[in-house]
Amino acid sequence: MSKLSIPQGMRDFPAGMVRKREYIFSRIRKVFELYGFHPLETPAMENLETLMGKYGEEGDKLIFRVLNNGLNDPRNIEKSKQGFEKLLEGKNSPDVTERALKYDLTIPFARYVAMNHGQITFPHKRYQIQPVWRADRPQKGRYREFTQCDADVVGSRSMLNEIELTAIYHDVFFALGITQYNLSVNSRKILAALADLCGGKEKLIDITIAIDKLDKIGLEKVNVELFSRGLNEKQVTVINTFLSISGTNQERIQAVKNLFSKNELAEEGIAEIEYLIKNSKGINIQFDLTLARGLNYYTGIIFEAKAPESVKIGSIGGGGRYDDLTGLFGVPGIPGVGISFGVDRIYDVMEELNLFPEGLQKGTPVLFTNLGEEEVTYCMPLMHQLRKANIGCELYHEKAKLDKQFKYAHKSGTGYCIVIGSNELAGKLATVKDLTTGHQETMSSDTLISYLSTRIKNTNE
Amino acid sequence: MSKLSIPQGMRDFPAGMVRKREYIFSRIRKVFELYGFHPLETPAMENLETLMGKYGEEGDKLIFRVLNNGLNDPRNIEKSKQGFEKLLEGKNSPDVTERALKYDLTIPFARYVAMNHGQITFPHKRYQIQPVWRADRPQKGRYREFTQCDADVVGSRSMLNEIELTAIYHDVFFALGITQYNLSVNSRKILAALADLCGGKEKLIDITIAIDKLDKIGLEKVNVELFSRGLNEKQVTVINTFLSISGTNQERIQAVKNLFSKNELAEEGIAEIEYLIKNSKGINIQFDLTLARGLNYYTGIIFEAKAPESVKIGSIGGGGRYDDLTGLFGVPGIPGVGISFGVDRIYDVMEELNLFPEGLQKGTPVLFTNLGEEEVTYCMPLMHQLRKANIGCELYHEKAKLDKQFKYAHKSGTGYCIVIGSNELAGKLATVKDLTTGHQETMSSDTLISYLSTRIKNTNE
Repeated sequence: MSKLSIPQGMRDFPAGMVRKREYIFSRIRKVFELYGFHPLETPAMENLETLMGKYGEEGDKLIFRVLNNGLNDPRNIEKSKQGFEKLLEGKNSPDVTERALKYDLTIPFARYVAMNHGQITFPHKRYQIQPVWRADRPQKGRYREFTQCDADVVGSRSMLNEIELTAIYHDVFFALGITQYNLSVNSRKILAALADLCGGKEKLIDITIAIDKLDKIGLEKVNVELFSRGLNEKQVTVINTFLSISGTNQERIQAVKNLFSKNELAEEGIAEIEYLIKNSKGINIQFDLTLARGLNYYTGIIFEAKAPESVKIGSIGGGGRYDDLTGLFGVPGIPGVGISFGVDRIYDVMEELNLFPEGLQKGTPVLFTNLGEEEVTYCMPLMHQLRKANIGCELYHEKAKLDKQFKYAHKSGTGYCIVIGSNELAGKLATVKDLTTGHQETMSSDTLISYLSTRIKNTNE
Repeated sequence: MSKLSIPQGMRDFPAGMVRKREYIFSRIRKVFELYGFHPLETPAMENLETLMGKYGEEGDKLIFRVLNNGLNDPRNIEKSKQGFEKLLEGKNSPDVTERALKYDLTIPFARYVAMNHGQITFPHKRYQIQPVWRADRPQKGRYREFTQCDADVVGSRSMLNEIELTAIYHDVFFALGITQYNLSVNSRKILAALADLCGGKEKLIDITIAIDKLDKIGLEKVNVELFSRGLNEKQVTVINTFLSISGTNQERIQAVKNLFSKNELAEEGIAEIEYLIKNSKGINIQFDLTLARGLNYYTGIIFEAKAPESVKIGSIGGGGRYDDLTGLFGVPGIPGVGISFGVDRIYDVMEELNLFPEGLQKGTPVLFTNLGEEEVTYCMPLMHQLRKANIGCELYHEKAKLDKQFKYAHKSGTGYCIVIGSNELAGKLATVKDLTTGHQETMSSDTLISYLSTRIKNTNE
């Protein structure tokens, strides 16, 4: 007998959760489509070498690798042995593991674009809603299998894309009822200018990695990290000045301009921030200089969406511009920009704020009771008609006492029971019981559909 | 630079394919819901021990196992070494691989039911539409990642379930336009009776495995296999008599009755087949004695749906009744019955028979041209209005010659271009060009939405 459990950090989704998740997906999907994005799906597995080295050293360790099959086949066994040795040294070996589960949607998308760039019409706008896998330590809100919803435009340097993506954040969160979300933007160009000011470009990664932790560990520990990464007192002071800039967006923009006089990168970055804010009317954007984002491939505007303050959940989306992601796969010169929604956290936000609609279907709308063979024969064509009218229904699976059948209906969330007994048989009638109100009504079987149609709405659209 | 490829037997699905697949899924999902089935999703990975030993020896070899992370961690390295030794002996080792990708949806469902049987209301009707993974040799129509669509009822022995599942096959295939499908049924009880007649129950698996290959290898080779599995001349003759039964359903039923006089199992099986056929009016069911199905857990009615004869694709669905699947996980006494749709093959059938509707969305319905900053500012609120009216639209990403923008629109499958030039700006107008007909019309920007709404239908529903 096998042990009854599922892998740590992974989840079963019973019907109620699937419907709530689908409620989120369908709204995100709809907004993506309205903005001219089109779907893409890539396999769960990629070649291991497609993924390795793209997520930093820490990321690489969290990639789930898949064992090759036939390792103990006599023809493979020598290679398998050598491959295992390599694995034990912390290296990869295609003789033992060639494939891995995808860690995010961005790198597989870059691989797809690089592979198919001859056939793709640019700019190419795609969205992708698929699970990804990370061997992270599971904790509240962090799973080893979770779903990402990404929208990216590749093949365009235009800031119009950033404006559209900002509007997508707004439309999606409003569609879900999360109207108090916070959207922060910053620019990697400004951070690069900060690195310039602190001893050179090569400090950029150190600075962004440290700043990215500000929320979690606080300024003091960020400074410790900056020192440990080789920045000196003076440089850390500059960074602290930068991080302490506050006020309205306008005040922040002015302060940054003052700090970086005549730095070309900073000027570009600031101009982009100004342009984005100016063209995103009615959308609450915060120019946030402490926003850094962990991933190294960003080169321009970066985004982060956070849950409303009242919910202690933090980031529910992020993204940014990257200049050369497909360059990793030998196809340079395809710039892009993208955003992502963290669906699992959005789900938690919506649960906490009670934002899922009451009406999301629970059980089957209609249950026909089963009082015997003759009654079943009478019910069958009625059920057929109901389904033709898009009303979901089922028949109790066996002859049983009505009590038992009602109990099943209640437990499984049925809306209406149709009771067919000898009276109903004789008079070609149907008795409808509304399980919410308890109200019961007997009618001609011909009027059953119109009676139910006006009362049952398909709430899963 | 990484090599540009994806793992063998796996596929990227670009927009057109995603939409066609979603067309199939949504129709299957709708029928499942109309029959009172509710969704379930289980993780991509299961504990390896949940899967091992459930699919026969051949199946076990095709399971994709996932490497544990941290194998070369000093605390693990000794165990990892020992684990690898076991792997090389063809055994499993949880020290190296604890998890595996799911191989089908049935075993994870049985695991789910066994784990949650205390909370589940029985009969429990679930559907599941998710990918599964098999390290099979890829070939036409056979992939290493493919999607299964399953509907199962557990916790009921009633034949009403088989009747409903038969109707689901019919409704789904009709909804997809595959009206010439073939649905075969047989009963494992009848096959068990055949085993009785041929030397005892323990021959059942040998007989079903051999008969299951009839389609592929022909009767002669089936007989060779039967001999090699220890059946004697007389027994093989009985099996050949059985397999040669033909005629109408009624004639076949009579012939089986004659062959198995006074065998209780056979009588039960035949009664069930008769009941199913009698209660499936308007549905073309073939009682097919050569239908066996490979999996060992079936115990009653078995189903197989085949593509229309004109398409050489074969099986596009299958299923059957099983008495005790959760018993594998220590929770006995929960009988069930289920069916499955092979979506990847259904896709191929529909392509071959040209059954996908013309109207499935290709590109974005509307493209606004971009002739400069002022025009963009004029377009933005119009785009906002269109999206509010559920019309998808995008703005060409940069100022460019109209020619270039039209070319992009054509290549990316846009329906209508909205041209905004100095004339349109001055008069608050919009020029609409229908890219299919070439027809062009200038109108007040106020009437744009109603003009487009009547022309653009949302074809992805």
